[in-house]
Amino acid sequence: MDRQQSTGTLYGVGVGPGDPELLTLKAHRLIQSAKVIAYPAPDVGESFARQIVSRFVPDSAHEFAITIPMQTDRFPTLSIYDEAAHALCTSLDAGDDVVVLCEGDPFFYGSFMYLHSRVSKHYRCVIVPGVSSVMAAGAASASPLASLSETFAVAPGPLPRERLEAMLAANENLVFIKVGRHLEKIRSVIVDASLLDHAVYMERLGTPQQRCMPLVSLPQGRAPYFSLIQVNKRRSEPV
Amino acid sequence: MDRQQSTGTLYGVGVGPGDPELLTLKAHRLIQSAKVIAYPAPDVGESFARQIVSRFVPDSAHEFAITIPMQTDRFPTLSIYDEAAHALCTSLDAGDDVVVLCEGDPFFYGSFMYLHSRVSKHYRCVIVPGVSSVMAAGAASASPLASLSETFAVAPGPLPRERLEAMLAANENLVFIKVGRHLEKIRSVIVDASLLDHAVYMERLGTPQQRCMPLVSLPQGRAPYFSLIQVNKRRSEPV
Repeated sequence: MDRQQSTGTLYGVGVGPGDPELLTLKAHRLIQSAKVIAYPAPDVGESFARQIVSRFVPDSAHEFAITIPMQTDRFPTLSIYDEAAHALCTSLDAGDDVVVLCEGDPFFYGSFMYLHSRVSKHYRCVIVPGVSSVMAAGAASASPLASLSETFAVAPGPLPRERLEAMLAANENLVFIKVGRHLEKIRSVIVDASLLDHAVYMERLGTPQQRCMPLVSLPQGRAPYFSLIQVNKRRSEPV
Repeated sequence: MDRQQSTGTLYGVGVGPGDPELLTLKAHRLIQSAKVIAYPAPDVGESFARQIVSRFVPDSAHEFAITIPMQTDRFPTLSIYDEAAHALCTSLDAGDDVVVLCEGDPFFYGSFMYLHSRVSKHYRCVIVPGVSSVMAAGAASASPLASLSETFAVAPGPLPRERLEAMLAANENLVFIKVGRHLEKIRSVIVDASLLDHAVYMERLGTPQQRCMPLVSLPQGRAPYFSLIQVNKRRSEPV
């Protein structure tokens, strides 16, 4: 049975890192005309993805929050995505398209992939790429992310210290993401590599609470989960 | 003397990988109201960055093509950027803002950094991040770029074979960019790592000429410069 003839399409839509103006025209069009809008939400407080685009969400849209318990660095039980996928498929079966809001880019360290893997076998799915926080980091620090034949890499803070050291040794350009409570581990990896003067700390990019400063100026402690550290080995100004 | 009081602002604006709808709202606003628009252009043929946004460029805009001789893998003489920066500063001095169109993201393997390094010491510069071709690759292949605590890396094709092997060994997820005439070198690195079934080849993402196929199906030969290969070690469907 080809269910794709009359059923709706699942759209995974990147909404960028925080600034509503970093939404793409395509994401904007899909959100403004959406009948059903879904998004991840914490068990307490507002959905960040929903917040970014709140001015564009039509009053008439049916909204569906996928509640993900906040356990830092702990992966939520997959049954949450089973249940959410099941609920969204009811809308798809009714012929309605479903727009899923994704912070940054849908397929870059996002949770949309867990819905996609559950839904894409039986329904049409379209992924709309977005501006990732990593791209926004280069813009905020005013320091190019990579050039020419340099390598570029992204290392999540929860990785073991040895792995972070190896990543920093192997690449001309590295962005540490999910810094959070791993701040001091990452800082010491950077210090030991004599790269402290090449490191920029950033948090809450694209929001009014954005902070961007040399890592050397950041007090000891713990960072918010949505923080990152950009390291470029070349001198900061390319010639 | 503070020249920033009365002079214009230089905007480096990411226009995404090819699809005009992957422009951000911010890029769209800046382009539509621009008095001066600059972009890189080959010595023969049209500017790709200009082509992507052609429908949004106002008739009244003064356009400035920065001609970059096409020598694949060869870096153009820096005097081109000296001259272009000089010309753009004339507009900035006159109080006009200048919008520079950048394929993908301005600071991710782009040439905007060479203008930025020349202009930013004396004039206000704003970088508007964009959707990079790497993010568009995950969307086109329908395969997540990275998840959880996996690493993600980007390796340019011109790198020596040993370096590409090491990058592939060290990362769960890797995108080879600037594949071009390095296609067979990259393919053999992937084959030797027993990852051929995990590799997707893509070219001209976001354009009507977009191609996306398993690397195993791509005939031997040479690829266009704007081509990439995505490799994910995990099985293609996350659970």
